[in-house]
Amino acid sequence: MKVTALAGGVGGAKLAEGLAQILSPDDLTIIVNTGDDFIHYGLSISPDLDTVCYTLAGMANPSTGWGLRDESWNTNNQLKKFDNPVWFQLGDKDLATHLERTRLLKDGMPLSVITNKFCKIWGIRHPILPMTDDRLATIVIDEQNRELDFQEYFVKHHYEPKIRSIRFDGIQYAKPAPGVAEALINSDLIIICPSNPFVSIDPILALPGILRIMQQKTVVSVSPIIGGQAVKGPLAKMILELTGETPSASFIAKYYRERGILSGYILDKKDDCLTSLINGWGIICEVIDTLMVDAESRARVAGLSMKIGNYLLRSK
Amino acid sequence: MKVTALAGGVGGAKLAEGLAQILSPDDLTIIVNTGDDFIHYGLSISPDLDTVCYTLAGMANPSTGWGLRDESWNTNNQLKKFDNPVWFQLGDKDLATHLERTRLLKDGMPLSVITNKFCKIWGIRHPILPMTDDRLATIVIDEQNRELDFQEYFVKHHYEPKIRSIRFDGIQYAKPAPGVAEALINSDLIIICPSNPFVSIDPILALPGILRIMQQKTVVSVSPIIGGQAVKGPLAKMILELTGETPSASFIAKYYRERGILSGYILDKKDDCLTSLINGWGIICEVIDTLMVDAESRARVAGLSMKIGNYLLRSK
Repeated sequence: MKVTALAGGVGGAKLAEGLAQILSPDDLTIIVNTGDDFIHYGLSISPDLDTVCYTLAGMANPSTGWGLRDESWNTNNQLKKFDNPVWFQLGDKDLATHLERTRLLKDGMPLSVITNKFCKIWGIRHPILPMTDDRLATIVIDEQNRELDFQEYFVKHHYEPKIRSIRFDGIQYAKPAPGVAEALINSDLIIICPSNPFVSIDPILALPGILRIMQQKTVVSVSPIIGGQAVKGPLAKMILELTGETPSASFIAKYYRERGILSGYILDKKDDCLTSLINGWGIICEVIDTLMVDAESRARVAGLSMKIGNYLLRSK
Repeated sequence: MKVTALAGGVGGAKLAEGLAQILSPDDLTIIVNTGDDFIHYGLSISPDLDTVCYTLAGMANPSTGWGLRDESWNTNNQLKKFDNPVWFQLGDKDLATHLERTRLLKDGMPLSVITNKFCKIWGIRHPILPMTDDRLATIVIDEQNRELDFQEYFVKHHYEPKIRSIRFDGIQYAKPAPGVAEALINSDLIIICPSNPFVSIDPILALPGILRIMQQKTVVSVSPIIGGQAVKGPLAKMILELTGETPSASFIAKYYRERGILSGYILDKKDDCLTSLINGWGIICEVIDTLMVDAESRARVAGLSMKIGNYLLRSK
């Protein structure tokens, strides 16, 4: 069975790693959000790609979920001596990734080729594709109609500004990266990782042709909301601010369902009470402890996604 | 007495530091070559400015002359894991300088303002001015008519290619940075540090108006050649390849004299025999151990430059 996973952020990286544990490189492709990519100190930084790659390579910092393990902060500490607040933490080893990526981009190499090159160096066998080689920047518009780059909103302002809307700058020109549409078309099952739908998954769905392909496929998702809370990041706050609705696991299921792309869903045990509601929308649910704290729990959630996918494909 | 020093490279930084030891910040301005500046991994690097600033701040690595003392190499070592030869060594702390400079340049801040800002942070009290805020790139043309950026020639190729000529890319547009012409005009004495004339001093002299100002001033230089050898770098090799002449301390004196800008010259003890030859060109000479191995020797050479300058000004 061919599977493609859509991922962004730490939760997305964790499920992607779980899937990589149980699926061969021939059977799993991971498509990663690049809407958070930004230029900082002149360097091209791809936070979601790095998080997914570092996690799959076993190089991720286990305590933060982002960045590298055994990292040092000599450059970052020196940067603090300039009278400019350092809001994005650049680890010394992580910096090498940004430097080399920037160098290759300036040489004209597409991000997808660079990512493939890095994956080989890092010993990652499963294909990881950036959603696009083009610029598509997630812009958050706050109550004062200020436009904030996503990393500014997320890291610099600790997602404190109340937001009114989100837009994807560059969407009129961006195309899916080579292999992205092909992977989705050739997949039996598409898994949407427990990522923020507004800023990690929507940028992927916004690319031309992607939503239509997904509407013709079996799609399973894992809830990024546990007990009404986001595991990490601004998702619960965003649901409230963008839609006025109560943050819940069922909101996410409804959100994807309204786009016609969800057939199976995994809820956390804490949200078991929402199962019949979501079933009522024609979505098959499974319940598990979705918090992925280690390799075993990542494989367990991945295994359950595959189980629902298998069930849905058999009963088609 | 108002003094302006022209500097580039490690030798230039050493004499500039010696002058800063004996002259007050009101009386000494240091103008630094930026022809070696380049963009590497997306970062704007100013090797000569950094060497001069680090040296004056007492932060320079005493064993190399360039880079920072107590430096670590975590990013650089990680960079080596990408299959791209790392030819320019980026120390972790040094990287912070390049990152912040790149950030400010991208914000539109001129290099001279950035340098001033950095000097304040580093506790440097003497004004250090980049020669220009514009792009002026020293390009080395080798025997095969290949055009090499200076740092490529110097660091990547260890100045091995035989060179045919040098040109300054951007010279038709570059202007002296704010304060550069003013410092020279207001100076009683101009000191050309023991830097490579072709690639450290000529870029400064090539800027519009600079040579003409200098021709009207008392100019003293310190030989960068000791016993027919360059203390460091490709100078001796360049003299031979560019002019066919024998590398010597007198070559340098003649080189500046032919441009009408040299009245006083300091030779190393090893080159004492050249004194009468250089005197014959109407240039006053002093002889000293010019190798600046520590703060004392830097101050000693600086003191002798001032002594010649004073003598020349009195006897005008």
